[in-house]
Amino acid sequence: MPQHVLAIVDRPSREAPGTDAAPWRFVDPGSPQLTALDLGATRGDGIFESLSVGHGRAQALDHHLRRFARSAAMLDLPAPDLDIWRAVILATIAELDHPGEAFVKIVMTRGIEYGDRPTGWAYGSVSPDFTKERTQGVAVVMLDRGYRHDVEQTSPWLLAGAKTLSYAINRAVGREAARRGADDVVFVSSDGIVLEGPTSTVVYRRGNELLTPGTGLGILDGTTQANVFRWAEQQGLATSFELTTPDLLRSADAAWLVSSVRLAAPINAIDDEPFPVDAAFTAAMNEWLAALDD
Amino acid sequence: MPQHVLAIVDRPSREAPGTDAAPWRFVDPGSPQLTALDLGATRGDGIFESLSVGHGRAQALDHHLRRFARSAAMLDLPAPDLDIWRAVILATIAELDHPGEAFVKIVMTRGIEYGDRPTGWAYGSVSPDFTKERTQGVAVVMLDRGYRHDVEQTSPWLLAGAKTLSYAINRAVGREAARRGADDVVFVSSDGIVLEGPTSTVVYRRGNELLTPGTGLGILDGTTQANVFRWAEQQGLATSFELTTPDLLRSADAAWLVSSVRLAAPINAIDDEPFPVDAAFTAAMNEWLAALDD
Repeated sequence: MPQHVLAIVDRPSREAPGTDAAPWRFVDPGSPQLTALDLGATRGDGIFESLSVGHGRAQALDHHLRRFARSAAMLDLPAPDLDIWRAVILATIAELDHPGEAFVKIVMTRGIEYGDRPTGWAYGSVSPDFTKERTQGVAVVMLDRGYRHDVEQTSPWLLAGAKTLSYAINRAVGREAARRGADDVVFVSSDGIVLEGPTSTVVYRRGNELLTPGTGLGILDGTTQANVFRWAEQQGLATSFELTTPDLLRSADAAWLVSSVRLAAPINAIDDEPFPVDAAFTAAMNEWLAALDD
Repeated sequence: MPQHVLAIVDRPSREAPGTDAAPWRFVDPGSPQLTALDLGATRGDGIFESLSVGHGRAQALDHHLRRFARSAAMLDLPAPDLDIWRAVILATIAELDHPGEAFVKIVMTRGIEYGDRPTGWAYGSVSPDFTKERTQGVAVVMLDRGYRHDVEQTSPWLLAGAKTLSYAINRAVGREAARRGADDVVFVSSDGIVLEGPTSTVVYRRGNELLTPGTGLGILDGTTQANVFRWAEQQGLATSFELTTPDLLRSADAAWLVSSVRLAAPINAIDDEPFPVDAAFTAAMNEWLAALDD
């Protein structure tokens, strides 16, 4: 049972020149596969998705594939061939053959500069252990994302809402959080609207309602948030989107950063102020998320 | 005489674990050199510089190396070993052995996730022919950069002013310009201050003065702009920095996008309005820039 596997996708898009070769091939994940001229490596010019795998099943597969295609369109990349990507994800999971929690990351770059096709790969790996984050929670700091909450409408070239490989800022804010003694980040727009985490969606509870920042804010359409809402509705909770201010978030009864692989991490502090964790509610949410098989 | 050469830098930083191997080695530029786990490729998490080479000499070498080190510090990367980077740049130029215009791009990524060292390379290539851009000029559109002009001070985690591999936006605005029938872009801050081009610095002339947007705006400290100012002062022109509004730029007598490899491209239109090109002045500027040997 390998700890990680890598498939190079030679036919990532229907627009790529035809080839009689297989659409993908498994290679040694530790071996060099990309040239130093790949625009993924030189310009962060590409897209990705990370899917959770539980009990050998890809979770929210259709949602992730839809979002992958949407990111491609936002970057004017060739449309990914979703049949091939779906098949390579399933093959990667089968090759990994891991009974516990795992993930698959799919990546499509614009390819080699002046080349004729995107570069694609799927990387499958056993997941890190997130027990601590799921139970004790994460301390977050709110950090300015620099953009107004409406840039997705006014300035689509800023790619807000696309899941791109240009994630240097998403990594830098993690280091800033650590400098402030925190674990994670909630982005706030320059005009004071709560957006998302650098690799997660914000969800919070107020009474019998579960909420998340509204759509159209230049943030990702959360795959795990959608599942959390599905679960909440089964529990008889109301769910809704709202334009969230930092004060609204601070006054919530509980809040989470939710994402595909880490699942729901309860927020236990905001900007050094302790924040209530609902341990039983969180455990139920994570149990349901981990057991999902679609 | 190869058209392009690639050196992998195995000792990019003094902080990287010691090795008895040579600090760099030349490899086939078309062969795979990076793994799919390199944070350069998966997160755009790294930095770069592009240097112009004229007559076999690197131009503004010290300035580029200083900026490389500054970008590394802004991203909390290990400090690049500038002696080694300087040597590999010179070796790359020697290996390329091209009498005409060429360039060297140096890249340092955060390396493989959970690894112990950055990944580094230097890529040298013959330059494209920029005669048309240098003589006829470029039509630009002004596009919102999304950020206020003061984010470098308020929100350093946004990495404004660092030359990172997360350049998906810099590429997206080029496509937006093309959709509008233009060649290039001038970024404007969300509060209406002219910033820079996606791969260039804005320089403009008003009477006997050459100007450029002020420092501290979250933009790059232009290596070519510094040389253009040096030339202008030799010509008896005054030079200065100013907080530039779009109207100030539009009312200039002439303007350029200046960068290391393309040199000075005169702006011939702004947002579809024709803009005056001073052909003789531009030619003199480019002649001097191309002949620089330091």
